[in-house]
Amino acid sequence: MKPGLNLCFLGFGNVSRTLVRLLADRETELRDRHGITYRVTGIASRRLGWIANPSGLDPTAVRGAGFPARAKPEAKSNSLTFTTAQNVREWLAAARADVLFEATSLDVQTGQPAVDHIRAALEHGAHAITANKGPIVHAYRELRDLAAKQGKRFLFESTVMDGVPIFSLFDQLPAIHLQGFHGIVNSTTNVILSEMEQGLSFDEALKKAQALGIAETDATHDIDGWDAAVKTAALITVLMDVPIRLEEIAREGIRDLTPQALRNARRDGWPFKLVCRAKREGDRVKASVAPEKVLATSPMAKISGTSSYIYFETDIFPGLAITEENPGLYATAYGMLADFLRVSSAAK
Amino acid sequence: MKPGLNLCFLGFGNVSRTLVRLLADRETELRDRHGITYRVTGIASRRLGWIANPSGLDPTAVRGAGFPARAKPEAKSNSLTFTTAQNVREWLAAARADVLFEATSLDVQTGQPAVDHIRAALEHGAHAITANKGPIVHAYRELRDLAAKQGKRFLFESTVMDGVPIFSLFDQLPAIHLQGFHGIVNSTTNVILSEMEQGLSFDEALKKAQALGIAETDATHDIDGWDAAVKTAALITVLMDVPIRLEEIAREGIRDLTPQALRNARRDGWPFKLVCRAKREGDRVKASVAPEKVLATSPMAKISGTSSYIYFETDIFPGLAITEENPGLYATAYGMLADFLRVSSAAK
Repeated sequence: MKPGLNLCFLGFGNVSRTLVRLLADRETELRDRHGITYRVTGIASRRLGWIANPSGLDPTAVRGAGFPARAKPEAKSNSLTFTTAQNVREWLAAARADVLFEATSLDVQTGQPAVDHIRAALEHGAHAITANKGPIVHAYRELRDLAAKQGKRFLFESTVMDGVPIFSLFDQLPAIHLQGFHGIVNSTTNVILSEMEQGLSFDEALKKAQALGIAETDATHDIDGWDAAVKTAALITVLMDVPIRLEEIAREGIRDLTPQALRNARRDGWPFKLVCRAKREGDRVKASVAPEKVLATSPMAKISGTSSYIYFETDIFPGLAITEENPGLYATAYGMLADFLRVSSAAK
Repeated sequence: MKPGLNLCFLGFGNVSRTLVRLLADRETELRDRHGITYRVTGIASRRLGWIANPSGLDPTAVRGAGFPARAKPEAKSNSLTFTTAQNVREWLAAARADVLFEATSLDVQTGQPAVDHIRAALEHGAHAITANKGPIVHAYRELRDLAAKQGKRFLFESTVMDGVPIFSLFDQLPAIHLQGFHGIVNSTTNVILSEMEQGLSFDEALKKAQALGIAETDATHDIDGWDAAVKTAALITVLMDVPIRLEEIAREGIRDLTPQALRNARRDGWPFKLVCRAKREGDRVKASVAPEKVLATSPMAKISGTSSYIYFETDIFPGLAITEENPGLYATAYGMLADFLRVSSAAK
């Protein structure tokens, strides 16, 4: 049995809360099958501040952490006492963090403050696991090299296609050459396009996606193709080992598509999808995110709702495609759990 | 740089010869990017006998090894001299084997002699990499445990879906629970069914598949569903951790399907495919291989020629599907190369 690991959560929205539940759900399995024990020693968010207790705390008992209030808290006494730090470095130190789960929201243009959080964690000597795509696009090589120097891991499996192990799959494809890929990686636009084909207006379709909990209150990032472009950039940066700036990706969102155009396209057998594409051209990669008409019988046309799809072109496998159908509630949080198991087995 | 590894090839048909070419093709990349150097110190087959030279030999210069004869052999002198051993254990010792590539042909009922070869390699202290499904179905737990005891690896990524990293993918899905799967994993029957839909008789379609190099001279194993059943058993044994005997898999081949029935089914929008299925039921797994009518617009209906497809049902991802389209010539051999890179990095 390895010594218990101290886990810290930064950004305490849906993904982090689901991860806390998933960790609790799998606690016995992690201990008995993987020899991993842990305790939560820090949680932090804009609302909560920097909460730490190196002896462990129960996130579900912290007021304002987003869990249902308990009539009779069952938590151990020390789990309700904590200190409050002033900044991320103080907090990591106070919590004696072994693993940081970073799940703050994406800043497309700078990747901040997530980049600073991950840098601080690695410098502190913790593994850094993020659900935030920004740091990959804005600081992948720096953070990767820093992690290597520190003997820690920087992992981000939940950033693309929920927790499907896309990045890890390519760790299992050594000495293969990725020439390009195409696919559908943004759920919000996929749901909106389907609903508009069924007759809803853009605004109605967006409201429905929001009501389903798929689209955020500010869905601009999805609708204008930013989310898909950032994911495309992350895949290119990591899997093709070619750094690419966001502005190099030709980007077009779905705002200009009318319900009429969508219905006509579907009727003609060539429905619209928001497609991301990347193709190696010499030392560079040409990439785009744009609505495309795809043949109704093609795999991309079948990707509905929250499902996603990526088709990879490699020298060995001309076409290797991954489809994720109807991800469950736990899918994104699972990606972080799987990263946690990776760092834990590396920490043996 | 790690010390050069001694590689031995047992069974020297198409897969092994392609692997020799692929290794030569990637030699610089393996050395410069992965720090791996190697030499071939043994090749063996029924025809060649047990050939070994611990100083290295050039398989492409060995007469009868299946490579084009050379007008002027460029090989170093010692690579054309070798000793001949009497059996697999003597041979592994004479070749000072670090890695065995086992690619003898499948014996469905016993898994032999591949099981003995792998056991001998692990006991000798070599890693064992096989393209043969027999040992997984007949001796998986024994060989896995023997490998662990010896501190060596027993890997078999090329046995299902050519070299697509199916088994390795699940190494990257820790603490996930696989409930079942379905898919198309046998190329010969897939090609024959397509050709028969186009109007060929069964015999003509089989001859065409043989002429294309897809079906073997004796295609009974494919046609009667044995190949698909063995692959299904391998997936169940390894990924669901439930040992299953071949006779527990309900198995039906494609012999009874007439061109007329196939054409009618395709015309009605429900073409026939040879589908493998597995489903967890309590502590056991229920499994089958049989021709099934599938909806023409479903993913399985789109799997044509040598392509293959598996849809996995897990607790986190209700549907996670892998499609391999038109595998290249190197696909199966690549699976063994990737296993080689796995054992080499483990041997650091």
